[in-house]
Amino acid sequence: MTYVTFPTGKSLDFTAIGRLCIDLNANEINRPMEETMTFTKYVGGSPANITIGMSRFGLKTAFIGKIADDQMGRFIADYLQKNHIDTTNVVTDHTGAVTGLAFTEIKSPTECSILMYRDNAADLRLTAEEVQEDIIAQAKVLLISGTALAQSPSREAVFQALQYAKKHGAVIVFDLDYRPYTWVSPEETAAYYNLAAEKCDIILGTREEFDMMERFEANPEHSDNVTASKWFDYSAKIVIIKHGKDGSIAYTKDGEGHRAQSFPAKVVKTFGAGDSYAAGFLYGVMQGWTLEKSMEFGSAAACIVISSHSCSDAMPSAEAVHDYIERCNRGEITAS
Amino acid sequence: MTYVTFPTGKSLDFTAIGRLCIDLNANEINRPMEETMTFTKYVGGSPANITIGMSRFGLKTAFIGKIADDQMGRFIADYLQKNHIDTTNVVTDHTGAVTGLAFTEIKSPTECSILMYRDNAADLRLTAEEVQEDIIAQAKVLLISGTALAQSPSREAVFQALQYAKKHGAVIVFDLDYRPYTWVSPEETAAYYNLAAEKCDIILGTREEFDMMERFEANPEHSDNVTASKWFDYSAKIVIIKHGKDGSIAYTKDGEGHRAQSFPAKVVKTFGAGDSYAAGFLYGVMQGWTLEKSMEFGSAAACIVISSHSCSDAMPSAEAVHDYIERCNRGEITAS
Amino acid sequence: MTYVTFPTGKSLDFTAIGRLCIDLNANEINRPMEETMTFTKYVGGSPANITIGMSRFGLKTAFIGKIADDQMGRFIADYLQKNHIDTTNVVTDHTGAVTGLAFTEIKSPTECSILMYRDNAADLRLTAEEVQEDIIAQAKVLLISGTALAQSPSREAVFQALQYAKKHGAVIVFDLDYRPYTWVSPEETAAYYNLAAEKCDIILGTREEFDMMERFEANPEHSDNVTASKWFDYSAKIVIIKHGKDGSIAYTKDGEGHRAQSFPAKVVKTFGAGDSYAAGFLYGVMQGWTLEKSMEFGSAAACIVISSHSCSDAMPSAEAVHDYIERCNRGEITAS
Amino acid sequence: MTYVTFPTGKSLDFTAIGRLCIDLNANEINRPMEETMTFTKYVGGSPANITIGMSRFGLKTAFIGKIADDQMGRFIADYLQKNHIDTTNVVTDHTGAVTGLAFTEIKSPTECSILMYRDNAADLRLTAEEVQEDIIAQAKVLLISGTALAQSPSREAVFQALQYAKKHGAVIVFDLDYRPYTWVSPEETAAYYNLAAEKCDIILGTREEFDMMERFEANPEHSDNVTASKWFDYSAKIVIIKHGKDGSIAYTKDGEGHRAQSFPAKVVKTFGAGDSYAAGFLYGVMQGWTLEKSMEFGSAAACIVISSHSCSDAMPSAEAVHDYIERCNRGEITAS
Repeated sequence: MTYVTFPTGKSLDFTAIGRLCIDLNANEINRPMEETMTFTKYVGGSPANITIGMSRFGLKTAFIGKIADDQMGRFIADYLQKNHIDTTNVVTDHTGAVTGLAFTEIKSPTECSILMYRDNAADLRLTAEEVQEDIIAQAKVLLISGTALAQSPSREAVFQALQYAKKHGAVIVFDLDYRPYTWVSPEETAAYYNLAAEKCDIILGTREEFDMMERFEANPEHSDNVTASKWFDYSAKIVIIKHGKDGSIAYTKDGEGHRAQSFPAKVVKTFGAGDSYAAGFLYGVMQGWTLEKSMEFGSAAACIVISSHSCSDAMPSAEAVHDYIERCNRGEITAS
Repeated sequence: MTYVTFPTGKSLDFTAIGRLCIDLNANEINRPMEETMTFTKYVGGSPANITIGMSRFGLKTAFIGKIADDQMGRFIADYLQKNHIDTTNVVTDHTGAVTGLAFTEIKSPTECSILMYRDNAADLRLTAEEVQEDIIAQAKVLLISGTALAQSPSREAVFQALQYAKKHGAVIVFDLDYRPYTWVSPEETAAYYNLAAEKCDIILGTREEFDMMERFEANPEHSDNVTASKWFDYSAKIVIIKHGKDGSIAYTKDGEGHRAQSFPAKVVKTFGAGDSYAAGFLYGVMQGWTLEKSMEFGSAAACIVISSHSCSDAMPSAEAVHDYIERCNRGEITAS
Repeated sequence: MTYVTFPTGKSLDFTAIGRLCIDLNANEINRPMEETMTFTKYVGGSPANITIGMSRFGLKTAFIGKIADDQMGRFIADYLQKNHIDTTNVVTDHTGAVTGLAFTEIKSPTECSILMYRDNAADLRLTAEEVQEDIIAQAKVLLISGTALAQSPSREAVFQALQYAKKHGAVIVFDLDYRPYTWVSPEETAAYYNLAAEKCDIILGTREEFDMMERFEANPEHSDNVTASKWFDYSAKIVIIKHGKDGSIAYTKDGEGHRAQSFPAKVVKTFGAGDSYAAGFLYGVMQGWTLEKSMEFGSAAACIVISSHSCSDAMPSAEAVHDYIERCNRGEITAS
Repeated sequence: MTYVTFPTGKSLDFTAIGRLCIDLNANEINRPMEETMTFTKYVGGSPANITIGMSRFGLKTAFIGKIADDQMGRFIADYLQKNHIDTTNVVTDHTGAVTGLAFTEIKSPTECSILMYRDNAADLRLTAEEVQEDIIAQAKVLLISGTALAQSPSREAVFQALQYAKKHGAVIVFDLDYRPYTWVSPEETAAYYNLAAEKCDIILGTREEFDMMERFEANPEHSDNVTASKWFDYSAKIVIIKHGKDGSIAYTKDGEGHRAQSFPAKVVKTFGAGDSYAAGFLYGVMQGWTLEKSMEFGSAAACIVISSHSCSDAMPSAEAVHDYIERCNRGEITAS
């Protein structure tokens, strides 16, 4: 059954708006960051990672965002271009903003944390006027990410992008990606997440992220059905609620909850799992696959990324994902 | 024909959320403010004035807002209570915010200006958590005012109030009341005005206010029909666009534009005209009158206020408005 | 004995830098402000009041400050000019700052309070570059006021003015005038008060103000001698410590503490007492009078002001002060 | 001749207050940072580097500063302790501030630049109350650094430290270390640099830094003599003005200008030259050496640091510096 119909006659498959930053990944791992002496630089930021993933799968993609006028910003733009992502709407800041940073700490494959630098981040300086309507007009899908809602003027830029996407019929995907540090208060967060989610066709988030959005609502048992129903009353067609190691469930307007198989992996770190899952899942849905097959593809893509050192650079090709699934099915891959 | 249906079985006729401030009106008028030596103090703020007007008409009203913890704040609360307005949800600030001020300058009946003090204003400190759901649940009408959208956390409080009003079936009225000084940029203003307007049943504003909201849209001829149609695609049933001395037009979903008779007045100043018009019009609509009769009642109420020294304190009773209309019809009142 | 020698050959007797604001004095007094309905507008701000006082005594004066680009700012400039105060260095703000306000509440002659509006005040926007060296070069005396140290860039403007005054040999007077509301913390306040006081020849303040400056020092018994001695180690020649109704003491470098006679008054309110005292005292010292006679003149000037409705407008002429002293001496004036 | 006398009977030789941060030095050098993929982490910040240098020379040292409550902050505290620096007065921030970062770019030995992260830096959150008087009371020398004056409350903490140093007779050294990015305006910078410099015994800076401080003064020919004389009128005994590759001159109150020999070096990068020079020079002066010999020692220490990858970690022992000088004198070291 088809839950979402994508527009045809568009020159771009996918565009995303929001955070572009630098990951500085610990080279010496399995120890506290205090004892890590060297770091390797990668492009990061959830919507950037997803876009890189989509491009690696062979889709035509573009990014809408803002970079600092410095070496880190230029590195990001170069990397996107090398990955065949259209950067026409990647604007350079001229206010002295800096590139957001994420230092990763990998104490063990399951104890990972991030030290964030988000003060005066360039990506949050994107304005509504800088969002190019024609990029969104050409795209089948617009993905928005919750971190871009954290501050003005980026917040207004996202609402403007939503307005353009509605006008031109793009399918809108909301990756909740809630990061408390850039927000003033949980009340403010809930307000803008809800206003944005009302306009979205596909919403992906963890149970905790949906709980945050229900701060002023009655869902005392944290019921997925109550959560999903609410959004089906607005624009949503698919609501994916992630329950950590208990797996993800894709709810659809017909009341169904779809689950998929998971795969073993030799886990290095957990970072990037969500982004690669989102990319894989959306790719599958855009190919017209069933939700189950799309979720399976997302899970396998995530396994590949969490077995590697980076998030963005490790994004696999579609062939690599298919191959991973086959090898798992043949029992060639076992968990670490 | 009935364009808006009001819920029944509610204990409150009307509630408003937003600005509560102090007007300091020049006692010596028809001169520049530099030469005004004494000022008289009144309660002010567009939603406060409208609520006072509704209460004077005999409706049961409540206000949702925030006052400074000082003499000005206490004066406001006292005045509302003396006017039979429920102040259960008028919260007192404890962060050291001050009461917004508006000094009026009346150089001549048609040359009026305002000197505003809006820095650190208490009314903009209202939070989403402070908005009481049960007040809105009991009310037939919720009126929001654009100035309350200008800053966090008041902005989120308004969106929360809209959420409660939708949930409980209150008719939502949006008085655009755009005041540039508290806003960061026109782009930010347009973003939040549009997000709020999508949820409203009745929208009142000047042509210039609607133009501001259409900053990112195509309405090059500033067509009222284009403007009104857009909002009918969302929740609106009535859109009133004011064209200054050319009069107001009430657009309805059936494509009609309704106009009403205007009245002569001995004008002292123009302040308060919009607020008394809004109160009179809404009162009429709530009585089940035609739009034309409601607009006429609003116009007559406005004539009474602009013939007086204050905005809030001059709000007339329904009898006084009816009497004014009759006297006009008998030719007893002529323009100044 | 001469404690301070004033430079000769200067075209200006006195200049002050700092706060220029508007007092809005309750017309209906002896009640809480909630019940006051009308207010009268006066120029206010401690250094402005002192300068007006000096000008009324017949001295040649100038003011260094910043006014809002609005009706209140223009009223202030006009009033200073009408009082023969040179406003060459009264700069107009162009950033949208407002005029500071002080609403007075007079519950009884001894229960007076002030409701201040100091957010985004124009006087605190004065920059170091705007301070004109030649005004200070021409002046015998520069008076600084503590409120101007509360924020950048006004704080730096004061330090620049002190630098010019040192360079050109002006006698520097520091009126502590500590008002907590514009300061971030007591630690910050103490830091800048002390840095400024090190450079001053005459320091006037209450015991409480000097206590605030000694936050990081050892003066557990709040000894005036400990306080005064500290400043004599820097530049001070006279330190006046005010003990409220117990009177003021002028300490001098020779270890003496000078006291003066006080006078009865029909008190309306206590506002303005300190400013008129400062003006009267400094006038006396500049005339070469003894400290005791100068303090007496200051006390009498204060009596006149506290018997009136305003602070600035009530500043007396020298003749009026002499006359008041004589009438007191003849027993014609008794306390209220 | 002895220009500065150090107090005796103190348990600490040296303490410094101010910036503590992390340097992230490019591992792949001689290229733009865009092409650098890995970075190595070091403790950084001018006063931290100088203190590490003094400790390596065998002096008893302490640091007064503030670190972020994160892995970077803990790494800094650990590193100081391992270098035998007393961290009793290294306070941990609890407001969510981050550790300042400096990414270095080494395009060639002479084309070096820094990409700074100074927003919300923990070191600038040190308060006056947190400065421990007894640390300063025990120290022969207090070194302050200009960057700590850039913002409140760190600025007030420095002035409080100066107050304690004056009270307890410590020799005060001011390392100008002017970094424009954390300052609001050049006028603000000049104001606080001058207020601090008035209280210092030894001042070190580049000609450009002294020019910045003379923004409001008349020194059109940028004369070193005019500059030095000004500070001798306050507390200064030695003023070192650095003229880049033309060498440094140490001015003394007797009107003399002292110069010293320089040494060849195999330069990797120029970072850290000033800090190691300052450490070496101060060490020499504290040993009672002539200014010339002290400057020579500073120059040799600088040569060692600029031949290495880091600033802090490369700080040499006194033996290593003596050895370097001897090898230079024997002609064993030549310039790169």
